[in-house]
Amino acid sequence: MAVEKITSLQNPRVKQLVKLRDRRPRDEAGVFLVEGYREIRRALEKKIALQELYYAPDWFLGDNEPGLLAQAQAAGAKLFELTKEVFAKVAYRERPDGLLAVAPQWRQSLTDLDRLLAGCGETGSYPGSLVPAAREPFLLVVEAIEKPGNLGTILRSADAAGCDAVIVCDPVTDIFNPNVVRASTGVLFSVPLVVEESVRVLGWLREKRIRTVATTPGAKTLYTAADLRGPLAVIMGSEQYGLSEFWLNNSDLPVRIPMAGQADSLNVAMATIITLFEAVRQRGGDNSGA
Amino acid sequence: MAVEKITSLQNPRVKQLVKLRDRRPRDEAGVFLVEGYREIRRALEKKIALQELYYAPDWFLGDNEPGLLAQAQAAGAKLFELTKEVFAKVAYRERPDGLLAVAPQWRQSLTDLDRLLAGCGETGSYPGSLVPAAREPFLLVVEAIEKPGNLGTILRSADAAGCDAVIVCDPVTDIFNPNVVRASTGVLFSVPLVVEESVRVLGWLREKRIRTVATTPGAKTLYTAADLRGPLAVIMGSEQYGLSEFWLNNSDLPVRIPMAGQADSLNVAMATIITLFEAVRQRGGDNSGA
Repeated sequence: MAVEKITSLQNPRVKQLVKLRDRRPRDEAGVFLVEGYREIRRALEKKIALQELYYAPDWFLGDNEPGLLAQAQAAGAKLFELTKEVFAKVAYRERPDGLLAVAPQWRQSLTDLDRLLAGCGETGSYPGSLVPAAREPFLLVVEAIEKPGNLGTILRSADAAGCDAVIVCDPVTDIFNPNVVRASTGVLFSVPLVVEESVRVLGWLREKRIRTVATTPGAKTLYTAADLRGPLAVIMGSEQYGLSEFWLNNSDLPVRIPMAGQADSLNVAMATIITLFEAVRQRGGDNSGA
Repeated sequence: MAVEKITSLQNPRVKQLVKLRDRRPRDEAGVFLVEGYREIRRALEKKIALQELYYAPDWFLGDNEPGLLAQAQAAGAKLFELTKEVFAKVAYRERPDGLLAVAPQWRQSLTDLDRLLAGCGETGSYPGSLVPAAREPFLLVVEAIEKPGNLGTILRSADAAGCDAVIVCDPVTDIFNPNVVRASTGVLFSVPLVVEESVRVLGWLREKRIRTVATTPGAKTLYTAADLRGPLAVIMGSEQYGLSEFWLNNSDLPVRIPMAGQADSLNVAMATIITLFEAVRQRGGDNSGA
């Protein structure tokens, strides 16, 4: 296989990779960055059609990288070999492992979720990620999350809890931010994820008769005292402002998580995982199929 | 008030502050760094006797800093004013807010916990943090945590769940690492924290008849099916290796958290908060006093 080698920091591809850390160039190009062995492997497992894969053997940490390169190339990715110095410039991680891919963005809509919840499986707009849902919907709705790391952690939580999908309302952070990809440890490639306005999401949830339970410190009902079975959407507010007036006023049931310590000991990612796993418990207690 | 001004990067205090990022110089000096308005305010609230407070008005984010400086000085801290450039060198945060304190380290022992659990309140070795425990012990034991950020998040979880104390066994990370202080958002100053060898901790727990429940993916019992009431210590393993053979073999009950998604979606901090809040639910459901 003939692989183009990039040795100059002035190479246009190098400049473009650095640009892709910012949202506007990402959206204009319709792509995003996937850095790291684990994340790239997961993208390939989930049939994400990587367009380009940049690698620098000087940074490799193990022996599995050539296999991954071959797999990516077989799946259609164009390979580029970089010098150590050039890779250091394009890497955004503090400790690069010599692997950086460019993947196509995708968009999933509420219509895609319709198909998913109807058990039709694949949505068409994003190949390979969706599996038939043979049970009552269990969704997570997050509002205006600001920190990419929190959004990534929330995606991991939703994955572990077995949520059918995550809906991000009025996002402040781009779901294709490199730190979302990293913090999600690749879950971004497997959990159905819809970005939509709150008003539309509420209308859709009502149409589907999916009950909305929103966590907020001011609620009277403890989250453990709420019935979290049946068609359910757990609603979480943003880090700084909590739940918006819109969701406070329109959710079926506000609930609170009891707090023993200082007021901000629970951040939104922690509150999310607590609420989701209480729902898992009430919905049967075991979502692992064991 | 006469405040010493530091304008040179070569000032010995500047060099010492940079050194204190590393464990050995911290331990030799018996101190640690507390950076940031929120963390310093909490240290003062908890009567931590700050020795020195370095500040640079050029980095201040708000109007409350002078009040904090006055409070620290009244409590005995020596103040130093730094230029913007000098502060940038001593700050370890990416976005400094112009405040960095040096605080004395402390050590709490199992004997201190004895007094705490007996309801005697203050331990003597660390002023101001301990409150009488008027109920059955609820402890968190973490083994060999590697990442300071995880340890800080775990401390927040224990605080929010109302744990009486956290015991760190065979630590890999120093509890006074700047990133523990930061990730704990100051909880380090309020949650009783003991560092001790696993063998001694087990002996102490058995002597106190505190039941040990350890989370591990291979357990048969779901964590929600275990009885988490009564005197309880939740045992969590390390990030990379999970629970050690020692705790696997010696815990009263191994439990598992069900996982729907990819194998590593739950990290140790997430598994900890899930388990602690299930214990909170079983122990009465509301730890906030509301």
